[in-house]
Amino acid sequence: MNCEIICVGTELLTGDTLNTNSQYIARELSKNGFSVHFQTTLGDNPGRLKDVFEAAVKRSDVVVVTGGLGPTQDDLTKETVAAFFGMSMQRDEAQVRKMKQHFDRRNYVMTDNNFRQCDIPVGAKAINNTQGTAPGIHIEKNGVSVFLLPGPPSEMKAMFDLYVMPILKNRTSQLVISRYFNICDFGESMVEEMILDLVNHQTNPTIATYAKPGEVLVRITANGTDAAAINGLLDKYSKEMDRRFGRHIFAHAQKTLAETVGDLLLKKHRTMATAESCTGGLIASQMTAIPGISEAFKMGVVTYSNEAKMRLLDVQKKTLDRVGAVSEETAREMCEHLATLSECDVNVSVTGIAGPDGGSAEKPVGLVYVGVHADGRTRIEKCKFAGSRQTIQKRSANKALCMVREAILNLQ
Amino acid sequence: MNCEIICVGTELLTGDTLNTNSQYIARELSKNGFSVHFQTTLGDNPGRLKDVFEAAVKRSDVVVVTGGLGPTQDDLTKETVAAFFGMSMQRDEAQVRKMKQHFDRRNYVMTDNNFRQCDIPVGAKAINNTQGTAPGIHIEKNGVSVFLLPGPPSEMKAMFDLYVMPILKNRTSQLVISRYFNICDFGESMVEEMILDLVNHQTNPTIATYAKPGEVLVRITANGTDAAAINGLLDKYSKEMDRRFGRHIFAHAQKTLAETVGDLLLKKHRTMATAESCTGGLIASQMTAIPGISEAFKMGVVTYSNEAKMRLLDVQKKTLDRVGAVSEETAREMCEHLATLSECDVNVSVTGIAGPDGGSAEKPVGLVYVGVHADGRTRIEKCKFAGSRQTIQKRSANKALCMVREAILNLQ
Repeated sequence: MNCEIICVGTELLTGDTLNTNSQYIARELSKNGFSVHFQTTLGDNPGRLKDVFEAAVKRSDVVVVTGGLGPTQDDLTKETVAAFFGMSMQRDEAQVRKMKQHFDRRNYVMTDNNFRQCDIPVGAKAINNTQGTAPGIHIEKNGVSVFLLPGPPSEMKAMFDLYVMPILKNRTSQLVISRYFNICDFGESMVEEMILDLVNHQTNPTIATYAKPGEVLVRITANGTDAAAINGLLDKYSKEMDRRFGRHIFAHAQKTLAETVGDLLLKKHRTMATAESCTGGLIASQMTAIPGISEAFKMGVVTYSNEAKMRLLDVQKKTLDRVGAVSEETAREMCEHLATLSECDVNVSVTGIAGPDGGSAEKPVGLVYVGVHADGRTRIEKCKFAGSRQTIQKRSANKALCMVREAILNLQ
Repeated sequence: MNCEIICVGTELLTGDTLNTNSQYIARELSKNGFSVHFQTTLGDNPGRLKDVFEAAVKRSDVVVVTGGLGPTQDDLTKETVAAFFGMSMQRDEAQVRKMKQHFDRRNYVMTDNNFRQCDIPVGAKAINNTQGTAPGIHIEKNGVSVFLLPGPPSEMKAMFDLYVMPILKNRTSQLVISRYFNICDFGESMVEEMILDLVNHQTNPTIATYAKPGEVLVRITANGTDAAAINGLLDKYSKEMDRRFGRHIFAHAQKTLAETVGDLLLKKHRTMATAESCTGGLIASQMTAIPGISEAFKMGVVTYSNEAKMRLLDVQKKTLDRVGAVSEETAREMCEHLATLSECDVNVSVTGIAGPDGGSAEKPVGLVYVGVHADGRTRIEKCKFAGSRQTIQKRSANKALCMVREAILNLQ
């Protein structure tokens, strides 16, 4: 089934807002085996929308339109599409009640504009909006399925997931199954190289890699009409992925490394603390973004100066004088003294040069030491990262989280 | 002049890659006074590209196409557009030399595919690619200006800024000038309400607001042919903005609050430290993302447990027992003891409930205390934030940075 996406909104057209709706819908359709051939963005202009819509219903089986369903004068998507199909409008009393409740609950006064949102083309279905006020519209006409959804991403996504996708899935016997492999500890290009033979010969399954600093997501997607056959195919590839990446596969979903570490800590009832220099709180911040993590994440220090390293972590002045803050010894003292201070199970330290300044021939930008102390043992890794300050900080944080994960897995 | 944007690339069509090129080009064109009427995204399919391109040259004066200029078989943008105009191809020797140098420097072997990138339609101009190998193409035909640019954003942006925009600017006497107002300490809807009368009557200048948690950017853009007249108009609006927001305007550019605080600290030779509970290192992480900030940002602690608050910051057990970790008293002890520990000029503390769990009737999710100690004085603010865990953390961090900024401005 050929699908296409039309996004209506002046804020998209002027580039004031990044169009994430198009990507979301395209990705959901593609991963369920539907082809998307065109995505068009245009402003709140009925004449131009009519032309684009006319081209769309001629060449596609499914047309998803977002935006222009609001209460203001320039929201004309519904009216334009209804006029195109020669449909008249009727006020939907169920939607009126719903909207009145919505406004009553908030003590807002409704204006006539608001009621306009409850007008539904005769013969079309209203799609309930669980996140906002404007209902969506579902029209089946001339063999084409048309879905009009609101522009705000949270409203659009909920309606697309709960209403549009189930209907479309019902119409195809094609099954599409994906498996995810989150890989840490390998560079992006290294992962790509390690599966290049698989990628080059892909037809079914298809293989896509998404690289982030120090973290790579591989998605393997197979399609067919028989679930057992598809899973058999995916099993073969999963075994190959396990063989090549082993313990470096840290998750099988679109999960971050910090979330994986958080889950592991909570599951194993272990605690963690951080001592960060060049990552400046990035690891702590990633960990504390996880709901409920206070059970496992206890404390962090950001020792961004030599004084802070001495005062907060008892790093010895003679160590700093002799080998400097960016050194194996400092990383070691940082995580070992942190362990005493925090009494946590896993203690991680990072010290390095994130740049762009502060590097030297001996200690260039990108030189980073990561230390992990757990179970009475300390492990230090010397890393050389490339990229911008931000990239070096991210890679360092992810390297540290990789090592924390290893340490938790190795705990008795 | 009516412009439109066509983005070619299967990775965009499937939603694997977010289309940031469209936004970039649209924003640059809009802010320079050009209208963008359509943005279309499609795959590497010559037939569909021909149809879309044909519609584009009929309705627009300028067509910018990105993607499909690479060396592989499916990169067919250039060939499709040249065939549409009936132009033949000619190898550009200057581009061949440039490409040979590029490959020689890297010790790569060139294949015939690579040379295909140096073929330029006869009558068209090659646009130098300073960031990669594929040159762009500039065609003037039938009163339409067509620019073909590569898909990778870094290459596209450089060519758009250096080549395309200067040509287009030259063709118009229209001047477009923007001013920015970064506002902190006010909620998004509050800012919108405070300028609603200006927004509602906008024609020239136009006013756009971009809201982030605890931070709002207002852009006021005026156009005309006389710079003095435009600036006069903008001065009037600037005065009005100053009158309404005063000291809450923290910058006049697309700058973050953390960057503003960093600049202020460096300029005034002042130092700063953080004690974070519910923000978990977010403030430290934002501050240490700034290059060169180690002169000003000295240390941070993430005290995510009562033990950590006691051990790292000497918060009294009796305080925690009596009024709890989320309280004015704890926020006060945190920033005051941090001041002793850090010896920094400005010391900020945050303690609160970011949720989704951990709230109670007395202390609901979103209750946050921010403390700032500077110059011997402590200021505590009690805040009630709404939203997701992430939003509450971000709002808390920005509130803290607002207060830090105030404190630096008030320092003798």
